[in-house]
Amino acid sequence: MMALPRKQTDKRPASKQRLRFWLRLLKLQRRMEAVLREKLRAEFGTTLPRFDVMAALYHHERGLRMSALSSFLKVSNGNVTGIVDRLVHDGIIIRVPVKGDRRAMTVRLTTKGRDEFADMASVHEAWVNELLADLPPADAEAMIAGLDRLDQTMGEPE
Amino acid sequence: MMALPRKQTDKRPASKQRLRFWLRLLKLQRRMEAVLREKLRAEFGTTLPRFDVMAALYHHERGLRMSALSSFLKVSNGNVTGIVDRLVHDGIIIRVPVKGDRRAMTVRLTTKGRDEFADMASVHEAWVNELLADLPPADAEAMIAGLDRLDQTMGEPE
Repeated sequence: MMALPRKQTDKRPASKQRLRFWLRLLKLQRRMEAVLREKLRAEFGTTLPRFDVMAALYHHERGLRMSALSSFLKVSNGNVTGIVDRLVHDGIIIRVPVKGDRRAMTVRLTTKGRDEFADMASVHEAWVNELLADLPPADAEAMIAGLDRLDQTMGEPE
Repeated sequence: MMALPRKQTDKRPASKQRLRFWLRLLKLQRRMEAVLREKLRAEFGTTLPRFDVMAALYHHERGLRMSALSSFLKVSNGNVTGIVDRLVHDGIIIRVPVKGDRRAMTVRLTTKGRDEFADMASVHEAWVNELLADLPPADAEAMIAGLDRLDQTMGEPE
């Protein structure tokens, strides 16, 4: 038996729909990121990569190895190293040797760093809340579910 | 009459839901962008900002002013200038003076540039299609509609 064509609401091929989805997601992300980047600079004199490093360490109280921090942030090791150096210099984080591995280091927020991040994070949350003020929580839930599904099923192109 | 509390499927405040949505969107975007960036480098020896500049010009056949290109790309003018310089040097784009404005320049893809971008774009579309292979087109449509709505209603934090 021949396969019947599936009903389609749109004649465009699936790959075009997926590309459009990706471009819309990127557009929204870039707009929001541009606003948040500028707000972080103006209100806290900080940068987004620095905020991201502090956020990652805030959620890992016992600290992270540099390699884990880098892969967590999906940015190059080199970048993270420079940011970490400055955060150590500013008393925001400390380096702690890893027991049993003389070459490895963990980085961890100091108390000052935790307090500073907690303050920034609550203001950051308020900014996101204003940017997305027209997103009903139920819609947010539905979108989160969709994004999670994609995150779990994401393929790797050959 | 007192306002009745709205039925909620989740006890968390709306701002936490919106933040979670933003963090999931960012996570997916970063994962995908990391893959696409690496593929562009490995397959075409090019960078994402360079691809983005070519994409913007491909969709504006008559060319764009530098200022329009910059705001289109939501990156700093400085960055775009460097990328444009290299693309001109490589024969991918040309600078054209703007009639009636001696200080303004438009940039435009050359024929070689248009051909090169068309090739890259079709491979890029295939990568996105593989990354999102498990996203049914109907779901893509629903997500696109949601993202569009957010793009139109996005607030600006004070």
